[in-house]
Amino acid sequence: MRLLTPFDHAMLRMESARTPMHIGALAIFRLPDDAPPDFVRQLYNAFSALAFLPFPYDSVLAALPVADAAYWKKTEPDPTYHVRLDALPSPGGEADLGALVERLHSRPLDLTRPLWEAHLIEGLENNRFAFYFKAHHCATDGIAAVQTIQSWLSTDPGGALPSGGKVDESGDLSLLQKLTILPRRIVEGTLATAGMLPNLARMALGPDSFVRTAVRTPSSVFNQRLGPHRRVAVERMSLATLKEVAGRTDTKVNDVVLAVVGGAVHRYLLELDALPRTSLTASVPMALSRTEDTLNAATGFVTPLGTELDDPLARLQLVAAHTRRGKHDIDGLSRGAQDYFALLGLTPLLLAQNARLATRLPLLFNFTVSNVVLGKEKRYLMGAELEYIVPISFLVDGYGLNVTVIGYGDSVTLGFVGDRDSLPHLQRLADYTRAALADLVEAAGSAGQ
Amino acid sequence: MRLLTPFDHAMLRMESARTPMHIGALAIFRLPDDAPPDFVRQLYNAFSALAFLPFPYDSVLAALPVADAAYWKKTEPDPTYHVRLDALPSPGGEADLGALVERLHSRPLDLTRPLWEAHLIEGLENNRFAFYFKAHHCATDGIAAVQTIQSWLSTDPGGALPSGGKVDESGDLSLLQKLTILPRRIVEGTLATAGMLPNLARMALGPDSFVRTAVRTPSSVFNQRLGPHRRVAVERMSLATLKEVAGRTDTKVNDVVLAVVGGAVHRYLLELDALPRTSLTASVPMALSRTEDTLNAATGFVTPLGTELDDPLARLQLVAAHTRRGKHDIDGLSRGAQDYFALLGLTPLLLAQNARLATRLPLLFNFTVSNVVLGKEKRYLMGAELEYIVPISFLVDGYGLNVTVIGYGDSVTLGFVGDRDSLPHLQRLADYTRAALADLVEAAGSAGQ
Repeated sequence: MRLLTPFDHAMLRMESARTPMHIGALAIFRLPDDAPPDFVRQLYNAFSALAFLPFPYDSVLAALPVADAAYWKKTEPDPTYHVRLDALPSPGGEADLGALVERLHSRPLDLTRPLWEAHLIEGLENNRFAFYFKAHHCATDGIAAVQTIQSWLSTDPGGALPSGGKVDESGDLSLLQKLTILPRRIVEGTLATAGMLPNLARMALGPDSFVRTAVRTPSSVFNQRLGPHRRVAVERMSLATLKEVAGRTDTKVNDVVLAVVGGAVHRYLLELDALPRTSLTASVPMALSRTEDTLNAATGFVTPLGTELDDPLARLQLVAAHTRRGKHDIDGLSRGAQDYFALLGLTPLLLAQNARLATRLPLLFNFTVSNVVLGKEKRYLMGAELEYIVPISFLVDGYGLNVTVIGYGDSVTLGFVGDRDSLPHLQRLADYTRAALADLVEAAGSAGQ
Repeated sequence: MRLLTPFDHAMLRMESARTPMHIGALAIFRLPDDAPPDFVRQLYNAFSALAFLPFPYDSVLAALPVADAAYWKKTEPDPTYHVRLDALPSPGGEADLGALVERLHSRPLDLTRPLWEAHLIEGLENNRFAFYFKAHHCATDGIAAVQTIQSWLSTDPGGALPSGGKVDESGDLSLLQKLTILPRRIVEGTLATAGMLPNLARMALGPDSFVRTAVRTPSSVFNQRLGPHRRVAVERMSLATLKEVAGRTDTKVNDVVLAVVGGAVHRYLLELDALPRTSLTASVPMALSRTEDTLNAATGFVTPLGTELDDPLARLQLVAAHTRRGKHDIDGLSRGAQDYFALLGLTPLLLAQNARLATRLPLLFNFTVSNVVLGKEKRYLMGAELEYIVPISFLVDGYGLNVTVIGYGDSVTLGFVGDRDSLPHLQRLADYTRAALADLVEAAGSAGQ
């Protein structure tokens, strides 16, 4: 019997009709040159065999007789329920794919079944197909979900689908297993009372830039009560261009990405006539170096995005200064303090789900910008080359935007998830990142790629 | 301001995550010979103009400040939310369509928006496409929904889509408007207590076959607690074959359809080793002649289906005897008594939705077999010929199967909706109706068509 950790419990407790707590990933593949017409259906059949599903995708949640405890119980997942063959209307453009994925991602998982769905999607233009995978955040975190998908991929164009034995379960559970070492009372405490929040600023860390930045977060259109539906937008950037801008400005690629998001938000909010006078802030769980033992996904710091600035270079330098300091501050913490920090990052999200508290709590950031690296090496699914992959995250009440960034091959992909009811034209926000990068390229005197 | 009737309120109150109360219709069309490649997308664009949407599809539910009352409020429906372009994976067979429609029909409507969705579905094999429309039962009944779809169709192959002015609103509301004449306390009373049920058998009607049949209904696999997901199956029959069997056995076409369903259920339950010794019963809302003022959709009687019999002819004669008597008994009622009957038909459904009562209540029938007639004349949507149409109804707790029958052109289509969790292999039940008709054709000495 595998008990749910306090972290899992918290994720499960946050589930509501307006805020389903699953995360997803969308992967785009090129059909092999010699692909038969039913290639995607063959893949669908292969996935329907469920032969390579690691724990916990073969288990359901069950309640212990004692109060407030759940565990994973092995079951036989019904492939006709969990695996789905979808198709896009012709011409099968990215907009058609986006419309489908928005609907798939808006739909809650059935909590009485294994907490995942896999969709093979045929009919994407230019001889491509898509794969959308979703799983509940109580069963996996975003990094682990991408790792699960990665375990199905091969660096060999001639590689077959993996079978059961090839999947290493430890990758999927490292985050959850690690979090069991945290005292349960931390999560329980943060759930039970908002009284902890004022203490954050008086923590042993002292008055540093993270906490100051966080408590100065302005209210914004991104921080409203959510509806039940989501919008999804995707934008891709050349890694070489990002690197060239970083090199010319003595910043990191991640700083350039954050500044680009800041520039896009600047333009998006100007257009809505809703730009706060002080900078919007992002929670950034990407700054620590990632090893197999690091809890990066839930640890991080808060940085201003310079949305109040007009000058793209000034915005970039502001972001770079804060990420340097944030990373330095967190690196200096003891391991125990870092774990404590991991849960603090979760605190505003947990509290925000309590409807009565949501409007009375101070914001500690405006939205999250997550970062995942898949690597430069080309990957294949049954011979089909992975073109790009984008994680699609979850939203909680009061936090109506999430940006995830993933590096693969020679490009960086940004996935935007927004609340449908409060955020109009999310696609524009994605489009504006392209414009913001062009501005930075020009300002840095770079040639671009 | 248009208030919700007691009937609407009851439908709304029955909504739950496991039992969403929307009804649907699936229509299959042949592409015109000269259809451009983007014909279905053109249709999608035309529907997205929302120019021909009658009340209440342009309105949302709003609560009155006084308790327990709601009204329809005009709004601007968002076409990108309500109208959807879908596609089937190739080869786009009926099974692919079924898998998609099952998922669409399982998903609850967003009660904060206008209570409908329209899906244009391209990629159906043999140069066809499909149209799936769903609406909440508090906004329309099945007959009215089919009438709404019918209002979009033309008997002229060269006909265009209708515009706003062409839709007659009265058809959509006749049921609702009529029911406002019923005292609210009838519905309220049936909701408040199960004490009314024993009185049914002592009603002024006296001990007739309807009531006796109803109270003898055996428990069955069709009458369990529901899960949140649905299965859908469709079967078509030749109207000429049904007529020939009816002619040779001195029965009605509707009797033959009921006996065919009884025969299919007989085989399906034998296979599951779950055939009750006494006959399963069906609630049949089709027996009254339908005029514009008749509340047929909610009026009817209960008939045994002869599922305990092995002989197909004996089964048909049993059904025919009961439908003759049921129709005669109801025709003899005063109009007021008929209206009262309309709500009695609803009573077990309303009560079943009360979880604490569901298991303690006697069944009054095992499932419903509804009947809708569209007519013999060919119909077209922007030049595309309607091949067949099938209503897809709703389920409530304890009633895990619904069969709807629609006559159009030279065929009769049966639509089966079943609870996914309690009913395995619903497609087999549909397949067995074909076998049951073949048995009847042979037993009646008919040649078949």
